[in-house]
Parts: sequence; structure tokens; C-alpha cells
Amino acid sequence: MPIIVVEVMPKAEILDPQGKAVAGALARLGAASSNAAQFSAVRIGKRFELTVDGAVDDAVLAEVREIAEDMLANTVIEDVVSITVAE
Amino acid sequence: MPIIVVEVMPKAEILDPQGKAVAGALARLGAASSNAAQFSAVRIGKRFELTVDGAVDDAVLAEVREIAEDMLANTVIEDVVSITVAE
Repeated sequence: MPIIVVEVMPKAEILDPQGKAVAGALARLGAASSNAAQFSAVRIGKRFELTVDGAVDDAVLAEVREIAEDMLANTVIEDVVSITVAE
Repeated sequence: MPIIVVEVMPKAEILDPQGKAVAGALARLGAASSNAAQFSAVRIGKRFELTVDGAVDDAVLAEVREIAEDMLANTVIEDVVSITVAE
């Protein structure tokens, strides 16, 4: 059955403390191994996999777009960054 | 600056109560509008955006793969499903 992947990220202007914590941990670990890559920021969002009964057509995609904006993302603080069909 | 996107999903055999709740809500809302698409399952994972200082080469990608397996995903219950470079 086809899977529609919806990706949601916090808006750029919103502080992401969970991401900041990971970025801090990466910097601390990176300091130990001198040739490690530097990561200036980490942001953490959500990835939804919706399994669809039946075929994916434009109507289903439009409905998923609506669901994504209304239910999956809190559009006050989050953006829907992508909606793609897998499989 | 280049952004590396790491996507983590709960393993297929692990129960995802958050996803089950969303699937239940979608089914309830779908019952109201008769021509709505049916979603048989919803699973919710994480999407990390790592902003890299400098260029992305094979060494950086290898390091991100290691970080993803060791730190970003809890590999007992989660899988790293994709690592891609954006921008």
C-alpha cells in the first residue's frame, strides 16, 4: 500500500531547545576527536508516514495537505516542509 | 551552509501509540466526510536537520551516519531510514 510521508519542522524563528541540546552534545563530543566535522545548528522536527488504502491520486494528496496543515502540524510554531509519496 | 537531513522512524515491530492516536483521529474525522481517503496506519518519527560548517564530503557523511546511529536514533526501537544532503 502506498505511504505518504509528511515532514514538519519548527519555524525558523522558533527556538528549538531539543535541537539546541543535541547541537551542544555534538560540540562536546566533537571537541574530543579533533578532525570531527562541526555542526553549527541542529533542529528537530517530525516525520509522519500515512499508509493509504487504495491508490494515491490528486484528491488524496489534497486531503493529506489539508490534514497536514490542520492536524499534523501546529502551524503557529511549525511548517509542513514536504509531502511526498513513497512506494 | 549545507544541511544534512537525518530521518528516524520507530521499527515496524514496535507499537507507536502516538501514531495510533492520530490514525484513530483521522478515521473519526473521515467518518464525517463520506468521500474522504482512508488511512490504515500512521507512524510518527523524527527528522533532524544538521547544519554543517563547511563542505559536505564523504568523511562528514560517514561521521553523520555514525552520529545518527549512536546519538540521534535509539537503535533498540528506532531505525535511521535516510540521510540526505539538502542545499
